[in-house]
Amino acid sequence: MNFRMILRTLGIVLCGEAALMIPSLIVSLIYGQEDTRAFLISISILLVVSFILYRVKPVTTEIYARDGFAIVSLSWFLVAFFGALPFVLSGAIPSFIDAYFETVSGFTTTGATILKEVESLPRGILFWRSFTHWVGGMGVLVLMLAVLPSVKATSIHIMQAESPGPSPGKLVPKIRETGKILYLIYFAMTAILIACLLLAGMPLYDSLVHAFGTAGTGGFSMRNTSIGAYNNVAIEVIITIFMFIFGVNFSLYYQSLKGNIRTFLRDGEFRLYLGIVLASILLITLDLNANVFNTIGESLRHASFQVSTIISTTGYSTTDFNLWPSFSKAILVLLMFIGASAGSTAGGIKCIRIVLLFKVIRREILKIVHPRSVHVVKVNGKAVDEEMLSGVTVFFFAFIMIFASAVLLVSLDGKDMVTNFTAVATSIGNVGPGLGIVGPMGNFSSYSLLSKIVFSFCMITGRLEIFPVLLLFAPSFWKRVNI
Amino acid sequence: MNFRMILRTLGIVLCGEAALMIPSLIVSLIYGQEDTRAFLISISILLVVSFILYRVKPVTTEIYARDGFAIVSLSWFLVAFFGALPFVLSGAIPSFIDAYFETVSGFTTTGATILKEVESLPRGILFWRSFTHWVGGMGVLVLMLAVLPSVKATSIHIMQAESPGPSPGKLVPKIRETGKILYLIYFAMTAILIACLLLAGMPLYDSLVHAFGTAGTGGFSMRNTSIGAYNNVAIEVIITIFMFIFGVNFSLYYQSLKGNIRTFLRDGEFRLYLGIVLASILLITLDLNANVFNTIGESLRHASFQVSTIISTTGYSTTDFNLWPSFSKAILVLLMFIGASAGSTAGGIKCIRIVLLFKVIRREILKIVHPRSVHVVKVNGKAVDEEMLSGVTVFFFAFIMIFASAVLLVSLDGKDMVTNFTAVATSIGNVGPGLGIVGPMGNFSSYSLLSKIVFSFCMITGRLEIFPVLLLFAPSFWKRVNI
Repeated sequence: MNFRMILRTLGIVLCGEAALMIPSLIVSLIYGQEDTRAFLISISILLVVSFILYRVKPVTTEIYARDGFAIVSLSWFLVAFFGALPFVLSGAIPSFIDAYFETVSGFTTTGATILKEVESLPRGILFWRSFTHWVGGMGVLVLMLAVLPSVKATSIHIMQAESPGPSPGKLVPKIRETGKILYLIYFAMTAILIACLLLAGMPLYDSLVHAFGTAGTGGFSMRNTSIGAYNNVAIEVIITIFMFIFGVNFSLYYQSLKGNIRTFLRDGEFRLYLGIVLASILLITLDLNANVFNTIGESLRHASFQVSTIISTTGYSTTDFNLWPSFSKAILVLLMFIGASAGSTAGGIKCIRIVLLFKVIRREILKIVHPRSVHVVKVNGKAVDEEMLSGVTVFFFAFIMIFASAVLLVSLDGKDMVTNFTAVATSIGNVGPGLGIVGPMGNFSSYSLLSKIVFSFCMITGRLEIFPVLLLFAPSFWKRVNI
Repeated sequence: MNFRMILRTLGIVLCGEAALMIPSLIVSLIYGQEDTRAFLISISILLVVSFILYRVKPVTTEIYARDGFAIVSLSWFLVAFFGALPFVLSGAIPSFIDAYFETVSGFTTTGATILKEVESLPRGILFWRSFTHWVGGMGVLVLMLAVLPSVKATSIHIMQAESPGPSPGKLVPKIRETGKILYLIYFAMTAILIACLLLAGMPLYDSLVHAFGTAGTGGFSMRNTSIGAYNNVAIEVIITIFMFIFGVNFSLYYQSLKGNIRTFLRDGEFRLYLGIVLASILLITLDLNANVFNTIGESLRHASFQVSTIISTTGYSTTDFNLWPSFSKAILVLLMFIGASAGSTAGGIKCIRIVLLFKVIRREILKIVHPRSVHVVKVNGKAVDEEMLSGVTVFFFAFIMIFASAVLLVSLDGKDMVTNFTAVATSIGNVGPGLGIVGPMGNFSSYSLLSKIVFSFCMITGRLEIFPVLLLFAPSFWKRVNI
């Protein structure tokens, strides 16, 4: 372990976080509310800590996979820690644990909240709350890689640990260029979304906040009843479509820009993602039309929005699906686990892993039928190596184990099982709302401090796809100090 | 596929089932109730069908793994089909789907029931209902293997497909001898249990019925309120201990009989099983003592019984744990998934798989820390081959997928999510009771016919550990007919 290099990199990351707070500071200055001071103090603290850490002189700048994983997971815990300061210092969220939960929920693009009421909060604070979604969506460290020239050696391992999906695709040979391209696509799509929302009649500030939440597939809104508050079909349609779009692997957009539009139709993950979305919308529309709404149009509108918001792990809401029939709710809960695509801003297990897992089941059956043949698992025509397959199957078990352990822990609060189950599912899948008390019109405020810590842990573990965080608990990881 | 040989073997199995109905016929004759005719007709039908199937002349007697798997899964569907006849013909369960559910629940040692009331049923029928637990526990086909000399070539593949656990351990080189030894141990332990129950004051008939349910880890009782009806601490303690005992890998008993008692303490699976049981009892006792019962003794009594009955996937009850606090319920639901040991009569995922899965997670982390080392997973000091590890991880995903699909399907009935979730969990884990409507004092009667078929499918799939059943859905399995 190259601890000195890890500390130094953490210093750079925190300096970057200070820079990321500047837009929120500007917003607070424009609106002239009492949160300006909170941002100034937070930025100062970040700069001081960052300066101290950056002064650590590493013996060697060389780092290995484990250091990259450690940098990423420690960064996320730290960035959320300091990101919580504006909430506490402005008095918007007095309890630190609550503020930490909210910040983790922001950066991990979960969008679960402990706030019962958000509309009275200062504008700068609400901006910061949603801006964390945008930064966390594509990756805090990937952004640093793209912008800063100094973190060169560490690039590949950091990208590997922070990017969602079993194999972070390099778009171009240079990792830094890949990061830049990803952020350019991300930035452009966000800008288009903002323009669309403005055209649909949403005010500028609201458009920015909701664009951050949509692009990062986060889900924080500045309205108490989320997107439902606008009661505007155009806005709903725009957000439905963009939530879906931000759940697609960004490398497909890059390929399309280069002219290979067909890659979309050929891509196994995209086909499964689209298929699940269409099938879920169809089934829920039928269920809602039979049991809840009067017209097929209204059923379709709410079904599409909710399917898109849940599978993309965004978590905006237009209606209280807590009141929907069991079948529709069961589909939505399943989508929380599945999530959208690798290489997108979404959370969950990811469609590519589901594709691979089903192919592995198929192979297991073929092994019984034809024991002597060799069975290779292929995706998009290419053979997938055994190392990755074993990684995916292990990931699945680890995901379910952490899920189950967290459900046990939060059950200590005595809430009903549906609330506990979906609260953990929505946290680890980075979705946002669950069912019961944590439903679309509810929040996490009534949980105990211990549970809020458990949820925060689940959100970070889900966002970083488990192993970078589990690594911190491995005794062997802390041994072999070679500074 | 050697279809002719498969049909012929099915004929032998059905003939065996006719023989297995004889004890129930005798019981019905002793009590002189109206169910005698039902058994006589059922036995006759079985003999006729069996004779027709047995007359199929195979070109070759050679069979492969896939044939073994097919024989086992088809046998289970068929044995349950014909096993349902006495219930229908006697009028005890007029609907055939209901009777099928009940018989599947019996043979798979699940113990879930669609009966609202059992005490009024004829004695022979109740005997048959519980006797299916005893036969299904150790395996319908393993019994045939042990008893009949004619099914020799098929032995190893059938044993492999029917025995629970990732690697069915041969105790002795000959499979048939292994089957005999297993059934001898099983028979002896059941006899000891019956003796204990008689000593504790349970009537003979009740002792037999409850011994079948305990030994097979099934859970059907002939009393409406299950073991709670006796309100006898001695009986509860005996059954608590024996449920635990029947959840242990039988090969450990064989080793102990040969003098290696230490194998118990050295066995990784047994240690996890015992550890989970003790930890669960401790946690639930504390939770119950704080929230439900007045004395630590009463809390311990109910906690031990419920932990033992759920992890061994038996499903007897002494109290309505539906009313327990969330934390205790969450533990019990988790135990439904875990189950007891491979090579026992219990269902669920099995402790050995959990051991292996955790070791695989550990290896995945070690791979990040020390990427260049070779990491071998060991159990009980022996290296586990990659083929088995991959089988276990795939099994886990397949288990959860079938679980999730079944929850979706039964959600169509519109029942609450806790009921649906635990009803499927208890079916696929072969446990018996769930929570909500299907709680210890409830039953499955209010579900639709479609759902009952789904539950029956889950019970068989869980009992045969998925792949033998999934195989029937593989198109490649039905190709390549080489009669």
